[in-house]
Amino acid sequence: MPTDFAATKALFDLPEGVIYLDGNSLGPLPKAVPERLARAVRDEWGAMLIRGWNEAGWMEMPSRIGDRVARLIGAEPGSVVMGDTLSVKVWQALASALEMVPGRKVILSDTGNFPSDLYIADGLVRTLGEGYALRTVAPEAVAGAIDDSVAVVMVTETDYRTGRRHDMAELARIAHQKGALLVWDLAHSAGAFPVELARDGADFAVGCTYKYLNSGPGGPAFIYVAPRHQARARPALSGWMGHEAPFAFDLDYRPGRGIERMRVGTPPILALAALDAALDVWEGVDMQDLRAASLALQDQFIAGVGAACADLALATPRDHAARGSQVSFRHPEGYAIMQALIARGVIGDFRAPDILRFGFTPLYIDRDDVARAVETLAEIMRGRVWDRPEYHRRARVT
Amino acid sequence: MPTDFAATKALFDLPEGVIYLDGNSLGPLPKAVPERLARAVRDEWGAMLIRGWNEAGWMEMPSRIGDRVARLIGAEPGSVVMGDTLSVKVWQALASALEMVPGRKVILSDTGNFPSDLYIADGLVRTLGEGYALRTVAPEAVAGAIDDSVAVVMVTETDYRTGRRHDMAELARIAHQKGALLVWDLAHSAGAFPVELARDGADFAVGCTYKYLNSGPGGPAFIYVAPRHQARARPALSGWMGHEAPFAFDLDYRPGRGIERMRVGTPPILALAALDAALDVWEGVDMQDLRAASLALQDQFIAGVGAACADLALATPRDHAARGSQVSFRHPEGYAIMQALIARGVIGDFRAPDILRFGFTPLYIDRDDVARAVETLAEIMRGRVWDRPEYHRRARVT
Repeated sequence: MPTDFAATKALFDLPEGVIYLDGNSLGPLPKAVPERLARAVRDEWGAMLIRGWNEAGWMEMPSRIGDRVARLIGAEPGSVVMGDTLSVKVWQALASALEMVPGRKVILSDTGNFPSDLYIADGLVRTLGEGYALRTVAPEAVAGAIDDSVAVVMVTETDYRTGRRHDMAELARIAHQKGALLVWDLAHSAGAFPVELARDGADFAVGCTYKYLNSGPGGPAFIYVAPRHQARARPALSGWMGHEAPFAFDLDYRPGRGIERMRVGTPPILALAALDAALDVWEGVDMQDLRAASLALQDQFIAGVGAACADLALATPRDHAARGSQVSFRHPEGYAIMQALIARGVIGDFRAPDILRFGFTPLYIDRDDVARAVETLAEIMRGRVWDRPEYHRRARVT
Repeated sequence: MPTDFAATKALFDLPEGVIYLDGNSLGPLPKAVPERLARAVRDEWGAMLIRGWNEAGWMEMPSRIGDRVARLIGAEPGSVVMGDTLSVKVWQALASALEMVPGRKVILSDTGNFPSDLYIADGLVRTLGEGYALRTVAPEAVAGAIDDSVAVVMVTETDYRTGRRHDMAELARIAHQKGALLVWDLAHSAGAFPVELARDGADFAVGCTYKYLNSGPGGPAFIYVAPRHQARARPALSGWMGHEAPFAFDLDYRPGRGIERMRVGTPPILALAALDAALDVWEGVDMQDLRAASLALQDQFIAGVGAACADLALATPRDHAARGSQVSFRHPEGYAIMQALIARGVIGDFRAPDILRFGFTPLYIDRDDVARAVETLAEIMRGRVWDRPEYHRRARVT
């Protein structure tokens, strides 16, 4: 039975009159979240108090929910754990991976990576000191740049600006051939299309949940460590929750079993409760159906905008295999155009210097939404509506 | 006007019949939290969607709330920022502090420190490699062990087991005299008694908010960097939120101004909303009044238990200056005694091998509660109630 996307759409609480094409930045509110969160607050924290750690299963949430996320990214059970932010998880993955390739000191990444990943890698190599370096090449040059100085290849599968997608299985193959490990950032992949970490030979992977997994602003991140690496990966952020026996309160650290060692501090229970409820949306969703429907929506948008807005230059590859679940256009007045769109209820976002981004997911976007979005954008372009001064005021967060 | 603690007690949602003496582990639910959190979910995330980052002030929450916490710990405005977990914040503080004392490679701590702090320090020195070391001495030996190999002294002010308290001003004075920096863990201090970071010469401080600040399970942590150090402290976890201009999406990292550079990833908005509401309890609370009332409750408990339970050995110093806001007793059957207490509605907790811990705060505990707690404990001790097998079953989380 094919996935019923009218049914999943009904699971979201979308404001009247809004077409939300920014789930690639922050997913909308699943209807199940408010009540689940209220229960976690009143019936668990409020009523159970400290006993919630045992009675409400708080302590197991990072790995229990990790297994729910694992199913969506083709990961083995027991290989994903939740916690912290994506930036912290990138640091953890890089620090562990670097130590597993002795004699090499280079992290290789690309200029299409999300800047925070590059900042984190830069911070890590500065901490490690002499000889350690971050090398950054153009996205299309990554595979060719993996030489025998490279310990770790760190790439974000989907470019946050253009939506261009790396061939991760191929990168993993080449990295392994050259003796390097791969850290795979799934920020714009998890929940956006089928990901097959186990099949494609991933070593480490990290991701966030507040985009296509709809966990809410600043929701918990996740980390994946391939089962073959888990026993050998030293958790460089060795907090008590990653200890083999946190409640023994030993003075010495002993890494926990398997993926548990990648836990750091006390888990964020309220945020995990919101995420847990948000993941219910995925029951009954087939990832192949999701991909087919997402591509159909994207193609409809590309064709519609192409026909009606000659001034907008497509920044996303047309080849299905070479893109994720977002479509981007370039225009020198991109910021003001996006403000005009948002003022008319079509929400996408802008990335400097000239990118208009639109995220697509059939979970809550349908063909009618896309048609209306195209129409609204066409009106703005036809009337040069973006010229109005109110659309040129800059907010702190773009 | 003295603080009205009957009024603060009315601000908490405490289960009927429960006397909660475990706020040193997880604070109870402030009544303002459920509604504030529901608003953040429905009216901010749900209705504003991505626009919440600007319209609801999400982006400023870590520093705005940091300033609210700063007031409670005697810190300068603009010197505290929220985010991550305490373990991650310990790592950040240590990594930055170590680099600021060139030529020295030792972190000095004590065996009374919370194990996660020691684990994190151990993880950091292993990452840094040759020559870096964590040295651990008995709590009373810390001051004398600060020699010219020590770069950073890391102590938790209040011992999580016994409630013994370090003289932080004195430790800071000696550390500075010897050319070292001090990282001060306020886990059992913030909200427990007056802390004067600025007055007492703190360099770095870290803490959590889910204990005496009542932000809920796994609530956000904080970090303090003294204004004199801020421009020089390199953020070793250099995530995008600590960048000077996160939304410029530059490829190169430039640390943000002041304490902002200690931000790492996307802030946990729902958890911050809960914390923000929980901090309302502190409006009108005088920290000196809090301390006096806390000590009176502790003394009442010590005297009552001392008179009625000869088998329980006080583990907490009697000297007011030498203790925090918890009272601990030792007994070989401590675990079972605590289970029997909890079964009778008096909630404290147990720490291996033999410690019964009781946290006191006049925010929601009064003299009648303490009298009832003493009475209940006395009954259990008189009747050897702990012998019953049901009190010997071990839960995962103690």
